[in-house]
Amino acid sequence: MPTALIILAAGQGTRMNSELPKVLHPIAGAPMLAHAMRAGAVLEPEKVVVIAGHGSEQVRKAALAFDESAEIVLQEEQLGTGHAVAQAKETLADFDGDVIVLYGDTPFISPETLEALVAARASHDVVILGFNAADPARYGRLVMDGDDLARIVEFKDATDAERKITFCNSGVLAADAKTLFDLLDAVGNDNAAGEYYLTDVPAIARDRGLTATAIACDEAETLGVNSRTELAAAEAAFQARKRAESLENGVTMAAPETVFFAYDTYIGRDTVIEPNVVFGPEVTVESGATLRAFSHLEGCHVSRGAIVGPYARLRPGAELAEDVRIGNFVEVKNATIAEGAKVNHLSYVGDASIGEATNVGAGTITCNYDGVFKHHTEIGARSFIGSNTMLVAPVKVGDEAMTATGTIVTRDVPDGAMAVARTRQDNKLGFARRFFDRLRAQKARKQETK
Amino acid sequence: MPTALIILAAGQGTRMNSELPKVLHPIAGAPMLAHAMRAGAVLEPEKVVVIAGHGSEQVRKAALAFDESAEIVLQEEQLGTGHAVAQAKETLADFDGDVIVLYGDTPFISPETLEALVAARASHDVVILGFNAADPARYGRLVMDGDDLARIVEFKDATDAERKITFCNSGVLAADAKTLFDLLDAVGNDNAAGEYYLTDVPAIARDRGLTATAIACDEAETLGVNSRTELAAAEAAFQARKRAESLENGVTMAAPETVFFAYDTYIGRDTVIEPNVVFGPEVTVESGATLRAFSHLEGCHVSRGAIVGPYARLRPGAELAEDVRIGNFVEVKNATIAEGAKVNHLSYVGDASIGEATNVGAGTITCNYDGVFKHHTEIGARSFIGSNTMLVAPVKVGDEAMTATGTIVTRDVPDGAMAVARTRQDNKLGFARRFFDRLRAQKARKQETK
Amino acid sequence: MPTALIILAAGQGTRMNSELPKVLHPIAGAPMLAHAMRAGAVLEPEKVVVIAGHGSEQVRKAALAFDESAEIVLQEEQLGTGHAVAQAKETLADFDGDVIVLYGDTPFISPETLEALVAARASHDVVILGFNAADPARYGRLVMDGDDLARIVEFKDATDAERKITFCNSGVLAADAKTLFDLLDAVGNDNAAGEYYLTDVPAIARDRGLTATAIACDEAETLGVNSRTELAAAEAAFQARKRAESLENGVTMAAPETVFFAYDTYIGRDTVIEPNVVFGPEVTVESGATLRAFSHLEGCHVSRGAIVGPYARLRPGAELAEDVRIGNFVEVKNATIAEGAKVNHLSYVGDASIGEATNVGAGTITCNYDGVFKHHTEIGARSFIGSNTMLVAPVKVGDEAMTATGTIVTRDVPDGAMAVARTRQDNKLGFARRFFDRLRAQKARKQETK
Repeated sequence: MPTALIILAAGQGTRMNSELPKVLHPIAGAPMLAHAMRAGAVLEPEKVVVIAGHGSEQVRKAALAFDESAEIVLQEEQLGTGHAVAQAKETLADFDGDVIVLYGDTPFISPETLEALVAARASHDVVILGFNAADPARYGRLVMDGDDLARIVEFKDATDAERKITFCNSGVLAADAKTLFDLLDAVGNDNAAGEYYLTDVPAIARDRGLTATAIACDEAETLGVNSRTELAAAEAAFQARKRAESLENGVTMAAPETVFFAYDTYIGRDTVIEPNVVFGPEVTVESGATLRAFSHLEGCHVSRGAIVGPYARLRPGAELAEDVRIGNFVEVKNATIAEGAKVNHLSYVGDASIGEATNVGAGTITCNYDGVFKHHTEIGARSFIGSNTMLVAPVKVGDEAMTATGTIVTRDVPDGAMAVARTRQDNKLGFARRFFDRLRAQKARKQETK
Repeated sequence: MPTALIILAAGQGTRMNSELPKVLHPIAGAPMLAHAMRAGAVLEPEKVVVIAGHGSEQVRKAALAFDESAEIVLQEEQLGTGHAVAQAKETLADFDGDVIVLYGDTPFISPETLEALVAARASHDVVILGFNAADPARYGRLVMDGDDLARIVEFKDATDAERKITFCNSGVLAADAKTLFDLLDAVGNDNAAGEYYLTDVPAIARDRGLTATAIACDEAETLGVNSRTELAAAEAAFQARKRAESLENGVTMAAPETVFFAYDTYIGRDTVIEPNVVFGPEVTVESGATLRAFSHLEGCHVSRGAIVGPYARLRPGAELAEDVRIGNFVEVKNATIAEGAKVNHLSYVGDASIGEATNVGAGTITCNYDGVFKHHTEIGARSFIGSNTMLVAPVKVGDEAMTATGTIVTRDVPDGAMAVARTRQDNKLGFARRFFDRLRAQKARKQETK
Repeated sequence: MPTALIILAAGQGTRMNSELPKVLHPIAGAPMLAHAMRAGAVLEPEKVVVIAGHGSEQVRKAALAFDESAEIVLQEEQLGTGHAVAQAKETLADFDGDVIVLYGDTPFISPETLEALVAARASHDVVILGFNAADPARYGRLVMDGDDLARIVEFKDATDAERKITFCNSGVLAADAKTLFDLLDAVGNDNAAGEYYLTDVPAIARDRGLTATAIACDEAETLGVNSRTELAAAEAAFQARKRAESLENGVTMAAPETVFFAYDTYIGRDTVIEPNVVFGPEVTVESGATLRAFSHLEGCHVSRGAIVGPYARLRPGAELAEDVRIGNFVEVKNATIAEGAKVNHLSYVGDASIGEATNVGAGTITCNYDGVFKHHTEIGARSFIGSNTMLVAPVKVGDEAMTATGTIVTRDVPDGAMAVARTRQDNKLGFARRFFDRLRAQKARKQETK
């Protein structure tokens, strides 16, 4: 059975107190919307329809960045969840299959839950995802009738008996597309808010002789985010899960609570992560690497045996081969560092390639920017870049070559050669003593005149 | 009604195990005493009297740093809270109004509570601040008689019935100045410790036909600090509150628990703060800025759209205009950076001004110190400072000017000019190969002889 | 009575999911095995026997690194704890005294507990260390008979009544060496696992007319580590304890939960540690020093009044005298910094000595490595090293000397002299303007042709 996703992403999220549309607030480096889309992607949907409203242009961009075939439908006015889902009717006019309604601010639905939801469609026309709430509070209650879902009752409309129900509505729904849109046509807005509620669908289905049911998932999966405090809690939940998984998978972390992963971070077994390491998106670290304290990695690859940090920053495009060593106060961007090469101190390596076993001295800078264009630096294997070498790109240093300390390299250096550009050191005897005597005397005079 | 504050700050704080007087231990970058003084300042007191004892010189300085009109009175011997308050008698001899007694080690009293305390004076001669203790433990109990406070009973003197009372004494008191000092004259020291207790005041007031009452505040407001563990707990409480407020105000923080604010940090809406950011005092950040991981800010201003860090350090006097970019391993001190200027990597900018849209290359240093004096560097707009430029201050680089990589700038650079000071690069062919062959041979010989 | 330790360290630790033998996983910078050996060392044992199995070569090295007189015995097959202890029989053949059996994955036994264990041997032949479990779960139960231990019963063999016992077996045991090995000879392997259990020893002792007892310790001391999650919990427990102790001892920490100590970190009273400071092994910090945020220290000494960081990295061999100042983005390794000297910004000081009151400018690098050998730099007292000075070691700068900004120092600088190596600055008028006009025109052309 082909499936389509409808992802509701139109809300403003007033309680977020933000210019940014609610569903674009990030968790672990990705917008909540992308988490929801990724969750739904396990169903290999034929169509993905995102219902945008507030900040629709930004929402469109984020949705397409995650899935360029997603279709974005604008909900001009926000008239309720039923109205939101109904906006997809035209886009799905020719679609024959099941629709799953997801929420852009509910990022943690698991693949297993979505598969169970779809599976439950075999026996029922409409399937609702519920959860057994620890504190049901003001959630809508799922009124079951044996295996069947009789109806969803809002808290404010619920009887005392119904309020005792702890099986609550997550809002997620699965149904055949045509059936769903037919049922939505029957949903009215005769209520205090004047809105069309998706929650009316199961009861209408029953009235028409169709069947509805509800399946349960873990409450944590249905966590919705309505404020920044809830967003921070969602981030914390994500991080706790990812840290526990990483420990389970054999990652060594002395202080897991200080390691911040992105949604897609991959860390190999027996890799050591010291306290205070932060990952941006798209990082892979092989087994047996070491990431020392206060390191920051984004969009990079670290191979087996490499040692990074402390205080190392790997930016997008940093590719570290085996046994590479990136030390303190070193920034690497868009650069390939070959096996066993070392950049140990206070350097900037950007738009570069460095050959195997090459040693880059402290204070080395690839001068990759001329104010308008970026240029590339190439350094060969087994070379020795002296401290404070400036590599004015585009420039190439050969294999087994060296640069003297403080050299400004503007021309290519052949294999085996040494580049040097240095002025002879002159020692002016007694100068320092006279110089400081004079300055101190000045200072003393200044202080007297005060 | 004019008010005066008496702030008790004489205690040694033996359990702090410190040379520093207890009230000077900091919370969120300010001494506890300053927190107490700031709390009291909402009453716009006509007089502020600080009772100092242990470390009185240091306490005097800290008190005057917060409020230069504060009067510091020395309590030579510590003979109890009643004795401490009585030290203010002479200083307040001509003062006609209400006195509020606060404590230098009780930093969290809210403005609302102090206003309620003063308001309660309308109906009663003496007002005590109480709190309903979750665990009353050994706190003094407030024995109420309807709306009136009958007396304060110390735990050790309390009957079993009195020990069941959970309404406890915070020590904070409000009364008319003359009344208070009269009542204090009647307080005796006929007790085990031989001390004069402020807590005797309400009962004495009642004996004389005056009225006393107690109002309640949140227990967290009366948190007193007696050990470093309690200090750390107070700091944690402050940070938790400030983080929650910041989220509420629309600040984006993925990991609020890793962000450390100062008492006066201001962060605008939709500003993003990544994990592990530390604020010292006097920082303001406008809306829509980004503070990346591992940044450290003190005494600085960050404007809308600016991006700071990771690993950026802004020191006092750093003023970043809109859309400025301060990158990794960059230190900025006493420097104005104009709109859109960039200092992206490994630089020190101190005592300087940088014009709009200017790009400062990696490894640039303003050499602001000659060993005795500090000097200023001025860089114009739309200029390009090449990597590893040394700006030997005082020096001026014009608009649309540039410096070549590695230039040591000792003379002013006119608008549109390029400063260059470079020695020609020489490639010594085969030198590196011979050099390393020789060194490696040496090493081999050394190892043989071992 | 002489004592010997037998430390069981042969297990693979399958649930650790690691190549590293379980007992070598570190807590606070030392392998668990070393924690166990350190715990036992308070008894001043005459012999220390480590039973190794999985990863025995690595275990041997770690054991000898902690105690070079330790004897490592290989347990070829892992046939149970009784079998493991029996492997020490030959090594202890001539030993006449008490044996204490400890575990390489139980790092937190206290000195007091071990002393109590040994003391209990005065009255009983076999002494077991037990603990009152909050949740006894599947631990072995200690079945007491008055003061005597009747037997240890495994959970799965326990009756319902026995399962109600909360006094549980830690596995730690003390007995006379000859007695213990005799008893072990009687332990059989007639059980489901076919293993020889040390837990059978007390019952066998009783059968032979000997006496056994059990003493209780705090459950936290017997915490065993079987997974990385438990390892992280053990690390957290260690850090919590060390932080609490440090606060108690008068260390100032605003956010103790962000400070990570090593097992042997020593911090003096009234030293201030800001948030996010990480200690590796062998660090001592005297009283009244300041370690600012984001600092990383290993194998170094910081004296009274020194200020380190933020973002300072002190590596092994860094020795800071009183009032030294190491600032941001500075790395110090194997270097002695004399009283009042300053290295404030963006520098690498390695294999060096710096004299008192000397000021090292921003961007200074000791070029200590020539690609094969390391060399030493010596800087005298009251000297001024200009920004971006490169000190090409071996080299010596005298007292009251200076180096001009950007000097590459390859020859010694005498006392009072100034070293300078500089090319005259040339200002090419109008060059920058023409240069950028040309580049921007190129860029515009490129964009048109796209």
